[in-house]
Amino acid sequence: MPFVREAANPLVTPEMVKPSMPGFRVVCTFNAGVAQHGGETLLLLRVAEKPPQAPEGSVNVPVLEMHNGTWQVAVHTLSLDDPRYDFSDPRKILDKEAGNYVYLTSISHLRLARSRDGVHFTVDEAPFIRPDCELEGFGAEDARITQIGDTYYINYTAVSIHGITTALATTKDFVHVEKHGSIFVTENRDVCIFPEKIGGKYFALVRPVPRQIGQAKMWMSASEDLLHWGEFTPVAMPRFPWDAARNGGGAVPLRTEKGWLVLYHGADRESNRYSMGAMLLDLEDPRKVLAISREPVLYATEPYETTGFYPNVVFSCGAFLVDDVVHMYYGGADRVMALARADLKQLLDAMEPLQ
Amino acid sequence: MPFVREAANPLVTPEMVKPSMPGFRVVCTFNAGVAQHGGETLLLLRVAEKPPQAPEGSVNVPVLEMHNGTWQVAVHTLSLDDPRYDFSDPRKILDKEAGNYVYLTSISHLRLARSRDGVHFTVDEAPFIRPDCELEGFGAEDARITQIGDTYYINYTAVSIHGITTALATTKDFVHVEKHGSIFVTENRDVCIFPEKIGGKYFALVRPVPRQIGQAKMWMSASEDLLHWGEFTPVAMPRFPWDAARNGGGAVPLRTEKGWLVLYHGADRESNRYSMGAMLLDLEDPRKVLAISREPVLYATEPYETTGFYPNVVFSCGAFLVDDVVHMYYGGADRVMALARADLKQLLDAMEPLQ
Repeated sequence: MPFVREAANPLVTPEMVKPSMPGFRVVCTFNAGVAQHGGETLLLLRVAEKPPQAPEGSVNVPVLEMHNGTWQVAVHTLSLDDPRYDFSDPRKILDKEAGNYVYLTSISHLRLARSRDGVHFTVDEAPFIRPDCELEGFGAEDARITQIGDTYYINYTAVSIHGITTALATTKDFVHVEKHGSIFVTENRDVCIFPEKIGGKYFALVRPVPRQIGQAKMWMSASEDLLHWGEFTPVAMPRFPWDAARNGGGAVPLRTEKGWLVLYHGADRESNRYSMGAMLLDLEDPRKVLAISREPVLYATEPYETTGFYPNVVFSCGAFLVDDVVHMYYGGADRVMALARADLKQLLDAMEPLQ
Repeated sequence: MPFVREAANPLVTPEMVKPSMPGFRVVCTFNAGVAQHGGETLLLLRVAEKPPQAPEGSVNVPVLEMHNGTWQVAVHTLSLDDPRYDFSDPRKILDKEAGNYVYLTSISHLRLARSRDGVHFTVDEAPFIRPDCELEGFGAEDARITQIGDTYYINYTAVSIHGITTALATTKDFVHVEKHGSIFVTENRDVCIFPEKIGGKYFALVRPVPRQIGQAKMWMSASEDLLHWGEFTPVAMPRFPWDAARNGGGAVPLRTEKGWLVLYHGADRESNRYSMGAMLLDLEDPRKVLAISREPVLYATEPYETTGFYPNVVFSCGAFLVDDVVHMYYGGADRVMALARADLKQLLDAMEPLQ
C-alpha cells in the first residue's frame, strides 16, 4: 500500500468528545471533512450520538421535531414487539410494509477538531453544524470541505424521513456558517466539489444510488454557481473486486501536475469491506480518467479499522498535499479518525492507464 | 370522476405506428408529451419496440452499441438457462448477483403524432428523438413538453446500464431538435417543468426514487437556466390509499387563476394500479400545496386501461386548457393513448385544502 499510517493513530476517538445533549452518548467521531485555516488543520467530524438507553424490550430513537417554531431533537421509544418494524439492523429501523427505513438509532452533527501539527487534535465543546431543518431530521453526516478563494464550501449528507440528500453550507472563518439547502436530491451522498473552476465551470463527483437499474458509483456533475447542478455523466464504474459492490467520492480532489488526484472509496461484495482507491483525472476535462489504481491504496488492517461501529472500514472525506506528500485523514471502522501519508510519486506510480 | 373520456378512445394504438427498424414490432405507443404547434395538437409518443422473436429457449434483448463511431441498436440473444439472469419479469432482466436490472426486453424512442382536431391523429413515419448516446442505451421514454416563449423544452427519461436519468432537448419547429444531456441523475423520472419563471426562477417537479430511506414521491427543484437544478424540497408525500406506493409528476403544470394545476400520478400498494390525481400549487410559490384531490380524478375502468402491456394504468404526461376545459392526454395500460376532459371548475371543486 502506498499509504503509511501515522504512529499516533487513532487521532480522534468518541472518548474525546462531549455529548451535545444531556443524557446522550457519543458513539462515533469519524468521516471528517478537512481544511487548513488560520495555521490550523481542522477536521469537521461527524459526531454520532445515541439517546439515553431505553427500558428493557424497547429501543430509543432520536428524531428532529418542530416544537414552538424550532426544530429540536426528540426521543421516541419503540417497543421491540411492534409488528410494524424490523429491528435487526442495529443502525436503523425498517418499516416492513413500506419497505424502507424510517428511523436511525443515532443522530449525527458536525463538529470541529483543531490541531497545530495535524496529529494532536482538540475537539470543540459545541457542534459547528447542527441538524435543524426538515431535510436533516435524522442528522447531518460526512462533510467535505472545498476551499475556493477565501470561502470554504461544506457539503454534507442531510438525512431525514424524506431520504438521503446533499446539503451545502459556507463559512469563511469556521465561526459563522450559512446553510444553502439541498444541492442533490435523494439518494445522493459522497459529493466532492473540485477546488476551482475548470473550463469556466465548477465540477463535483456525485454518488447517486439507483433502485432498479445501474450501480451505486461515481458520476460527474457541473455547475456555474455551486447551488444548481447538471450535466451528469458516469465517471468510473466499479471494476475491481475491492469496489465491486459500490464506489463513491472520498477526499476532495487534489490538483497535481499530472492531473486531479481523486482518493475514492469502494466496497467489496463478499464482506462489504470499505477501502480507498486512487484515480487521476484530466486537469482540463475531469470527466476523463487518465489512470486508476488496480488495488486499494489503503485498506483496513489495524484494530481501529477492523473493529468499531462498522468493521473493516477506511473512509476518507479529505486530504491535502504538502511538499509532494499526500496527507489523507480517514474514518476507521465508522468510529474514529486516523491519518495516513503517501509520497505523491509512489501514489501516481501505483496507478495505470484505464483500459 | 371529474374527467370524462373522449368517445373515440383509444386515439393512438401500436397498430398505427410503423416500426423504426427492420424486423422489430411496435408493442406500445403511450405516455406522450403534448404540445400545440402550427395549428396542430402534437403528441410526442413513447414508442416501444421489441426485437425479432428469439429461438425457443432464449430471449432477444435490444441495446445500443457503438459501431464505427455511431450508436446503433444491437440485439443480444440470452439463453433462458443462463444462471446469471432472472427472466421472471417480462419487461426486464435481472442480474442476480448484482441485484439490478441489466436489460430491458423492448427499446423506446419518441415519435410525433399530429392532429387538427385533437382527436384524430396521424403518426410520423420516423422517430423524432432516437436513443443515440451512452445514457440512452436502453431507450428514451415518457416525454414532457414545456413551451416557454417560442421554444419547446422536451424532457424525457434516458435509460441505460448506468440507470434512469432525465435528459433535456429543445425544438422550435418540431423538425430540428437539439439534445442538451442529463439534467437529473439516476434514479429520476417524471420531471415536469413549469411553463414560466416564478419569482425569477424556473421550477420543476422531480421524482427521485430512493433506495434506503424515503418514498418515491414528488419534490420541487429550481433552476436559473433549465440545465442546472438545485433547491430540492419535498412537495407532496403519498398520503391517500390510491397513491400510497408512490406518486410522481404527470402532466406539465397548467396556470389557472387559482393556482398551478398539477395532474399527477400515483400507484396503490395493493395492486400497483396507476391513477391520476390533482393538486393546486401557489402561483407565486409553487412549493406550497393549496389543495389536493382526496380521490383520483381519473382511474382505470375501460378495457384499453385495464388490459394492455401493464394493466390498470392511466398515466398522463401532458394536458392543456382551452375555455376552462382541461384536455388531458394519457397512456392506457402502458399500450395506447387516450384523452379525457374535465371542466376546470369541477376539477377545482374536487380538491380540498391540504390538512
